Amino acid sequence: MIRITKIFTFETAHILYGYDGKCKNMHGHSYKLFVTVKGNPINDLDHSKNGMVMDFGDLKKIVNSQIVNEWDHAVMLNANSPHKGLGQNLEKEGHKVIYCDFQPTCENMLYEIAKKIKNKLPLEIQLAYLKLHETENSFGEWFAEDQV
Amino acid sequence: MIRITKIFTFETAHILYGYDGKCKNMHGHSYKLFVTVKGNPINDLDHSKNGMVMDFGDLKKIVNSQIVNEWDHAVMLNANSPHKGLGQNLEKEGHKVIYCDFQPTCENMLYEIAKKIKNKLPLEIQLAYLKLHETENSFGEWFAEDQV
Amino acid sequence: MIRITKIFTFETAHILYGYDGKCKNMHGHSYKLFVTVKGNPINDLDHSKNGMVMDFGDLKKIVNSQIVNEWDHAVMLNANSPHKGLGQNLEKEGHKVIYCDFQPTCENMLYEIAKKIKNKLPLEIQLAYLKLHETENSFGEWFAEDQV
Repeated sequence: MIRITKIFTFETAHILYGYDGKCKNMHGHSYKLFVTVKGNPINDLDHSKNGMVMDFGDLKKIVNSQIVNEWDHAVMLNANSPHKGLGQNLEKEGHKVIYCDFQPTCENMLYEIAKKIKNKLPLEIQLAYLKLHETENSFGEWFAEDQV
Repeated sequence: MIRITKIFTFETAHILYGYDGKCKNMHGHSYKLFVTVKGNPINDLDHSKNGMVMDFGDLKKIVNSQIVNEWDHAVMLNANSPHKGLGQNLEKEGHKVIYCDFQPTCENMLYEIAKKIKNKLPLEIQLAYLKLHETENSFGEWFAEDQV
Repeated sequence: MIRITKIFTFETAHILYGYDGKCKNMHGHSYKLFVTVKGNPINDLDHSKNGMVMDFGDLKKIVNSQIVNEWDHAVMLNANSPHKGLGQNLEKEGHKVIYCDFQPTCENMLYEIAKKIKNKLPLEIQLAYLKLHETENSFGEWFAEDQV
């Protein structure tokens, strides 16, 4: 088996309800997302994807439609907290708001990304790994083998 | 055990027979290859490699002789396809051609690199991992634990 | 479970006793260290670290106090070798010396970093992974699963 990875970026604001540091204020990141899938390369001279686990372009389409197009240039907030009202006010003023049912930390965003992408992959392809950079020097990772 | 990695680059053209996208045309990449081996560091004050799994320089020599010197500034094509004739024409005109018995995708190139490097490593050293970047944002990976 | 990583740099000289190459001379590297820990994100709206495995800032403090502040702008040498005398002379002249009970290769530095950081992590957090770059193209890795 081989793993293939495609890297994405999106520019998103977030705000952490109840946090005891600077991230309690609305701010944003140039998120950098690595999506890794695993499978056996097709071995069939007559197949247009011969030699590939999955066409990089097809992986790109899935991640763009599920994550990047949704989250890019939006504000993510915890809709289970008083921040819900803040989001409603922002929406009224024409901003894009993502109402999360979780605190939008790097860690929880990874769980959400995994859930959304897994459903869209072809049956023979497994989601193996995700990496999400909040900054150049800080990132979170989701490993398939860490999930039970 | 510790793993050590050395990173290499090579500039190589490839062409994918029968592919339904732009890669059916001959094109090239600045490939970036990560080679990772695993072992126990030597613990012997009188050994010239004391504290090392393997001298980075020795790993470099193996990968250069097996892969980089062979593939750099060459064209890789699928010799099991009609592209074989294309390669023969290019060779007549003085170009360097690598006749692969596989479709030269990132995935299949990883299998080939694994095969070639494994044979040349010292007995006590295991090939643990390979990463091959086709572009800055797209890469494939070979994990020892994914192979059966 | 999710893994989070913080990246650090430190500028340190080292010297390898008995090595049969250029690294037998004192020299230095811009070391780049990746520290990865693993745990379950806190799920409690009233917790100030809600949604986090561990606050990136807390991880940063541990690694800075254990490693970066100690090793940055110092000379690491093997105190079990004749280099001990060299270190004593350097100290007399006002330089900072780290007397290692190991050959200060990338590999052995990883073992030392693992030992020092593990002790300081909260009980529910595991050290999962370390990466130490000696140069941009050469690095070593410590994986929790490689240790027995």
